[in-house]
Amino acid sequence: MRKILHFDKETIEGMDKRFRANFINSVTGYKSANLLGTVDKEEVTNLAVFSSVTHLGSHPPLIGFITRPTLVPRHTYINIKDTGIFTINHINTAIIKEAHQTSARYDAAISEFDATGLTAEFLGNHKAPFVKEAHIKIACRYINEYSIEENSTVLMVGAIEDIYLPEGVHTEDGWIDLSEANGVTINGLDSYSQPQLLDRLQYAKPDKPTTSILKK
Amino acid sequence: MRKILHFDKETIEGMDKRFRANFINSVTGYKSANLLGTVDKEEVTNLAVFSSVTHLGSHPPLIGFITRPTLVPRHTYINIKDTGIFTINHINTAIIKEAHQTSARYDAAISEFDATGLTAEFLGNHKAPFVKEAHIKIACRYINEYSIEENSTVLMVGAIEDIYLPEGVHTEDGWIDLSEANGVTINGLDSYSQPQLLDRLQYAKPDKPTTSILKK
Repeated sequence: MRKILHFDKETIEGMDKRFRANFINSVTGYKSANLLGTVDKEEVTNLAVFSSVTHLGSHPPLIGFITRPTLVPRHTYINIKDTGIFTINHINTAIIKEAHQTSARYDAAISEFDATGLTAEFLGNHKAPFVKEAHIKIACRYINEYSIEENSTVLMVGAIEDIYLPEGVHTEDGWIDLSEANGVTINGLDSYSQPQLLDRLQYAKPDKPTTSILKK
Repeated sequence: MRKILHFDKETIEGMDKRFRANFINSVTGYKSANLLGTVDKEEVTNLAVFSSVTHLGSHPPLIGFITRPTLVPRHTYINIKDTGIFTINHINTAIIKEAHQTSARYDAAISEFDATGLTAEFLGNHKAPFVKEAHIKIACRYINEYSIEENSTVLMVGAIEDIYLPEGVHTEDGWIDLSEANGVTINGLDSYSQPQLLDRLQYAKPDKPTTSILKK
């Protein structure tokens, strides 16, 4: 048995800034790993890694993500407010370095596509760029934003309009096996991991044992 | 090259309800896997699996999660509003079935601890139960809630007060290696995966190549 460490409020408050950022960003668990694609008024493309994209609801299909527009100019936020649209592109095992590099503070005039070598792709009528190298891609329309007053962040709410994914990654009942598309997950601020499926479990009911859906 | 499937707004709208729930719940990427522990006014413990716990900020240390209190009575929501406290317990590979079973609709008088065999543990002065079998545990205080009017969900905001984790899972610079604690991630509504670390990357700067932090 390993010794259990206890970090109380005062200990956390007294941590070195960078240490605390790593620690608190890791402690909530694994996160989604996505690249958000936008375009500014002059049609300069922008791409940025986000680990806070979260499912908000299926009907209507809504997603949320957290951003902090006040600290430094956040091009993703500005572009979405200006154009009303953005894309969500899953990061896969082949593009983790390029995806991470989009977090560098490039000038607004520089496209992260040019800087990282990822390829902008335009699908349907969407003006916002997708990432050609991503396997799962979502087009979203800006719906609303909620200011989180406790720390000057914003919950952005988007409606899913189009979904693109390869044949064979979703099952008959609609579940998308993200591992079939080599999807990754983010742990903290800077680490990328590849999940392997352990099990898929039946809808839980009080008087039934927990059983697997998977045919083994 | 696999064929790319395209699902537009109308196709998604026309999906069977269960199919759409699986599909849209999977499409945002991997999610955090946590058990939220609460207690009601009569001190009956409650435990529920959540895949929406998200990092909101490090200073102050804040987390958010999404719930829908209006659809059915949500004991977690009611208990947090009544008592102001809750715990977050990471799901690990050894307890995925027990964790999933907490999503069954037990009566308020029944504790999911009794129903699933997980062990309630009380640490410090917190009245809300932790999960003894979890390796990473967080005590939180309710701070605020934001109603998301688009779909009657609520973003709950909690402040981190205490963190418990085993010795040796965090690095010198504060990063917590979740794989060291056998952490899992959720894909969709019902599947559990175990991530393996691919790489940890240096803080990105515009004119520097993307390099690994890990000593290999």
